[in-house]
Amino acid sequence: MSIASFLLVLMAILVASKVFGELAERFGQPAVLGELVGGVVIGVSGLNLIDPHQQTIHLLSELGVVLLLFMIGLETDLKKLLEVGGASMAVAFVGVALPFVLGYAVGRLLHYPQLLSIFLGAALTATSVGITARVLSDLGHLQSRESQVILGAAVIDDILGLIILTVVSGLAAGEKLSVLTIVRTGAVAFGFVLLALVIGSILAPFLIRVIARVRVAKALLFAAVVFAFALAYLADRAGSALIVGAFAAGLVLTRTEKGHQIQAEVHDLAQFFIPIFFVSVGAAVDLRTLNPFKLESRGYLVIGILLTAVAILGKALAGYVALGKDIRKAVVGVGMIPRGEVGLIFATIGRSSGLLSSGLYSSVAMMVMLTTFVTPPLLRMMLRSPGGGAPMISEVMRLVTGEPDAAAEDEEARERE
Amino acid sequence: MSIASFLLVLMAILVASKVFGELAERFGQPAVLGELVGGVVIGVSGLNLIDPHQQTIHLLSELGVVLLLFMIGLETDLKKLLEVGGASMAVAFVGVALPFVLGYAVGRLLHYPQLLSIFLGAALTATSVGITARVLSDLGHLQSRESQVILGAAVIDDILGLIILTVVSGLAAGEKLSVLTIVRTGAVAFGFVLLALVIGSILAPFLIRVIARVRVAKALLFAAVVFAFALAYLADRAGSALIVGAFAAGLVLTRTEKGHQIQAEVHDLAQFFIPIFFVSVGAAVDLRTLNPFKLESRGYLVIGILLTAVAILGKALAGYVALGKDIRKAVVGVGMIPRGEVGLIFATIGRSSGLLSSGLYSSVAMMVMLTTFVTPPLLRMMLRSPGGGAPMISEVMRLVTGEPDAAAEDEEARERE
Repeated sequence: MSIASFLLVLMAILVASKVFGELAERFGQPAVLGELVGGVVIGVSGLNLIDPHQQTIHLLSELGVVLLLFMIGLETDLKKLLEVGGASMAVAFVGVALPFVLGYAVGRLLHYPQLLSIFLGAALTATSVGITARVLSDLGHLQSRESQVILGAAVIDDILGLIILTVVSGLAAGEKLSVLTIVRTGAVAFGFVLLALVIGSILAPFLIRVIARVRVAKALLFAAVVFAFALAYLADRAGSALIVGAFAAGLVLTRTEKGHQIQAEVHDLAQFFIPIFFVSVGAAVDLRTLNPFKLESRGYLVIGILLTAVAILGKALAGYVALGKDIRKAVVGVGMIPRGEVGLIFATIGRSSGLLSSGLYSSVAMMVMLTTFVTPPLLRMMLRSPGGGAPMISEVMRLVTGEPDAAAEDEEARERE
Repeated sequence: MSIASFLLVLMAILVASKVFGELAERFGQPAVLGELVGGVVIGVSGLNLIDPHQQTIHLLSELGVVLLLFMIGLETDLKKLLEVGGASMAVAFVGVALPFVLGYAVGRLLHYPQLLSIFLGAALTATSVGITARVLSDLGHLQSRESQVILGAAVIDDILGLIILTVVSGLAAGEKLSVLTIVRTGAVAFGFVLLALVIGSILAPFLIRVIARVRVAKALLFAAVVFAFALAYLADRAGSALIVGAFAAGLVLTRTEKGHQIQAEVHDLAQFFIPIFFVSVGAAVDLRTLNPFKLESRGYLVIGILLTAVAILGKALAGYVALGKDIRKAVVGVGMIPRGEVGLIFATIGRSSGLLSSGLYSSVAMMVMLTTFVTPPLLRMMLRSPGGGAPMISEVMRLVTGEPDAAAEDEEARERE
């Protein structure tokens, strides 16, 4: 890729994310929904201006999600997170088990072999914390108890997803898996987070003191970003996920005396990279696999709808195990719905090992898309109008009549802070 | 490249740029010199942590120089630039002609064939505006009349360099070049800048008015960046240089009513990408080609020193044609010394067409390196101590005794603004 075409791609991403983000906000939806739609418009299903699998775009989009989770970590209070730790744990475990069982059942009902059915179940397990965290942040709702439960559960979920991935890809490769391997993978992944929090908490204040004596411009921001990258990298090496490390880095740094300044500066930088991630997610959506007018894709369309239904049902029900005061269980369940990269990684492994046909791959991809696209408006509806109502219609009216939107202005004021 | 190794490379770049940037400032040198040295340390001559030719790193570093020139454009007053336009023009033309003639003479003295000598001359022509602009900016000296002359001349220089590139690569390919082609290339390149300034000045206020009505976060910053990318892209397509387009975009936007806000926000974003460029420049330096203990490289080392000497001499003398009030001619000449990408592009074309041996390629690369590394401390010395003196020694003393450095504190205060 030449630098000129790189600039062209970046322009397409920036314009699509901002134009559709703006439209989404005008329709009372979170900006992230607009970015996803913008991605579809400029991606493989639309203008084909960007290829989300091109290496540089892919790396920048991954950088975006690392910075997003770092930012979310910076905005999260570890104490609050631990307060609802039990609820998070329960939601995460039930939210992995239930969709797995339901997905497996779908496979068996369709008379698929056992291993393939396990794959379908596994692809339904892991929540994509990125989408939900971004929606909660867009709506200014990150500090609520529901959000803490969701964030905690989503992080645990990500770790569980990786353990399942280890198991299932071993099965696909025909390996015999020992319980020991599974336990070790789990222990390493969870151990990393604990260790990162403990060691990070000791190191961070020291780092901040060193940085205070440095003259060079923006030293605090750069030190914070390097800290996040380092934890993300170590998490990856330890068999956990990059974004889990980045999230842990945010949790640790926000408790230092410079927490607020770091938060503000990282926020500004992250704004540039985060849309690349969401636009890329949208750009990778291939609507052709959903064409109901083509006979051969119709069967897989039905399977996709079935998988989507049990994917939504499994997580929504899991929300109801979130016991505790001031926790709206329905919100927690809906917050866990979006599946993302991890689901697609399962599908990709399944396809390359020959287990999943390209038709079934499309069904899984469809489930990922639909759960991703359905969550922002659902959460928006539940969080903005506790009494029900029809918020969208009233906002369209407001747009037409040109009256100011008090809620959106609140949000802008919050952003300006 | 996996995302984990991408994070590792980014960490290496950030740490090297900030640690060595800090050291440079402590020694009273511009931070950019530290970034270059940091690049050498982690690059092919040192720890070999980064490969500056890897596609993603290369693209991000190019993005860095585009944003740098955009930022410099935002900090430049078009009126002041035009006021010294005559001086800039004179410096640019003499500063291209003189090094060309001297480089050609070196080639002929060494009994190289005519075409090869033309190549050597051409490789000495184009100033790398990035280094100088960054040094002037680091020293808080961008607004002086000398700096305006240098910036104007460097931009014209970049355009002249591209025209010469067209001619010389045509010659290398054995083409017969018509005067018409040369004139057309020149007209298009210069015409683009004029057109960009005129049309941009008309469009920009309109763009600003549209953005003012947008709700989505950071819309102004994103619109400004897209504007800069668009002009850079168009400049490239029109046969001019990316950075010339980005610079023109800055000149135009800074004259709008939101100029100051754009300047502040772009500055924050650019801080992340600019060091990637300078660290990459340093990382590409291969010190092995300069090994004086190896017999076969000694001859090319001498040629490299000769080329460096005439490269410095040619630009330094060209500074003296900068007539006008309040212009220190010696500063202008030194400011034009650094050669960069364009010189290396010439050398690469020469090597791939078989004209330049890999030894001569190293001589040219050495000239690029030395002119780049010598300029920051030279400019620093001339701009900080008009009465001569030994600023470095006194600053080392200050560092040892721990006394505060008034000049550096001024600089910090300026950065905080």
